[in-house]
Amino acid sequence: MINPSFADDIKQSFAKQTIMSLIGAELTRVEPGVIEITLPYRADLAQQHGYLHAGIVTTIADSACGYAAYSLMPPNSEVLSVEFKVNLLRPAKGERFSAVAEVVKSGKTLTVVRADVFAMDRERRDLVATMLGTMICLSK
Amino acid sequence: MINPSFADDIKQSFAKQTIMSLIGAELTRVEPGVIEITLPYRADLAQQHGYLHAGIVTTIADSACGYAAYSLMPPNSEVLSVEFKVNLLRPAKGERFSAVAEVVKSGKTLTVVRADVFAMDRERRDLVATMLGTMICLSK
Amino acid sequence: MINPSFADDIKQSFAKQTIMSLIGAELTRVEPGVIEITLPYRADLAQQHGYLHAGIVTTIADSACGYAAYSLMPPNSEVLSVEFKVNLLRPAKGERFSAVAEVVKSGKTLTVVRADVFAMDRERRDLVATMLGTMICLSK
Amino acid sequence: MINPSFADDIKQSFAKQTIMSLIGAELTRVEPGVIEITLPYRADLAQQHGYLHAGIVTTIADSACGYAAYSLMPPNSEVLSVEFKVNLLRPAKGERFSAVAEVVKSGKTLTVVRADVFAMDRERRDLVATMLGTMICLSK
Repeated sequence: MINPSFADDIKQSFAKQTIMSLIGAELTRVEPGVIEITLPYRADLAQQHGYLHAGIVTTIADSACGYAAYSLMPPNSEVLSVEFKVNLLRPAKGERFSAVAEVVKSGKTLTVVRADVFAMDRERRDLVATMLGTMICLSK
Repeated sequence: MINPSFADDIKQSFAKQTIMSLIGAELTRVEPGVIEITLPYRADLAQQHGYLHAGIVTTIADSACGYAAYSLMPPNSEVLSVEFKVNLLRPAKGERFSAVAEVVKSGKTLTVVRADVFAMDRERRDLVATMLGTMICLSK
Repeated sequence: MINPSFADDIKQSFAKQTIMSLIGAELTRVEPGVIEITLPYRADLAQQHGYLHAGIVTTIADSACGYAAYSLMPPNSEVLSVEFKVNLLRPAKGERFSAVAEVVKSGKTLTVVRADVFAMDRERRDLVATMLGTMICLSK
Repeated sequence: MINPSFADDIKQSFAKQTIMSLIGAELTRVEPGVIEITLPYRADLAQQHGYLHAGIVTTIADSACGYAAYSLMPPNSEVLSVEFKVNLLRPAKGERFSAVAEVVKSGKTLTVVRADVFAMDRERRDLVATMLGTMICLSK
């Protein structure tokens, strides 16, 4: 059975992820199996060339993957990241970024999720990274 | 030829990674092929259970891997992350964290690096994550 | 410039991959950026439960990824696998299997490719594995 | 509790992996948390340049990882591969190959394992690939 309050649960859990407010990330889409997290660029989130650090790209992709998995889990579940792999495809250069995660295969214990991270300006939306990860469902 | 000023170059590059000062990370070991980055725990770096967010674990592991690769590259190189994979082994719970990266195989174009991330208290030092990644050498 | 003889080059290279004839794999689709390799099940390709071994799932996915990358490379290139990650989603149980690879991001040096592996019977086609990998272009 | 018959169980399970006899692989070391599988080179296991195909490198590494995980599981367990990532470090060129897996972190449900694959001649032993993977324990 799908958790009828998955959207509220995800919003509450996201609000507890203090790193999200530190970096300025917001939850911008919450649907069964699909989550989007959006992050405006800030100069204090950068690597040595001024682009968004790969670890911050990963931070939003990982939370998006975790909540996408969570959205299909039964009530009273908790989700943890088991592992993920990220390919960095282009410099993460843009005014804002969005990580869009979608479930590839949902299972009782493990859920496999993919996320794409886009860099956006007024005129373009480039795929800058892609994640493939595994999430685990634990009972509260 | 090894870059004779690799240690200074890495310190300067690290100082430009603004995300490192935002989260409070420091470069604590710089040797040929081995880099350590240390991060004290802070409540604003957490996921929903109060542990260090996997993306921040990744942030210090990725920079440690990048600089470990860089330390063996010729002068006038730049390093970028191609991809990495992280296994989260235990909750990232501790007073401070350290990511220790070491080069597995150094090549002209690509370098493969491994990093272990430890959570530490006065009394223990637990392996909480391990990264296996690929870095690319570009000429400036 | 795209290699005008990419399809012939791929067929010739595939014919040299002796492992493909050992296991009975065939190249069933060759298009720019998209490759399919098909493998009928055989009892001598199995793991301990009689399903296709994950290494053989990987064998067809890796070659499909390599040739998908190669199809977009300039003439006189060679392709090698840098790394790949595979998630095994379901037991690889079926009468035949197909690995379908498509390029995610094509670059001068590195190309990122994704492959899905399906298990098929008369009545069903299940996604049993997914690969995300990095290929490198070398000049002959 | 460790399975007192883990070594016999692994040998029996390995004997059921029909792919191992097809390619000529042998189980050459079975210890708690450590497994080695050895494979002589054969011309019918090759990719287009005559080196061992990355999928066959993966085949022996994956089975080594699975049995290394299994060796620390309780009696009446079964092991399945959840996912793995492989970096190909050098051409897999040699008279024989060995995959040596060791457990990084053993858990009740999931076990993380690393394997190194070496190519060997009379005079050298080169690291040609490294795997980092996740295995799951199921009750029979």
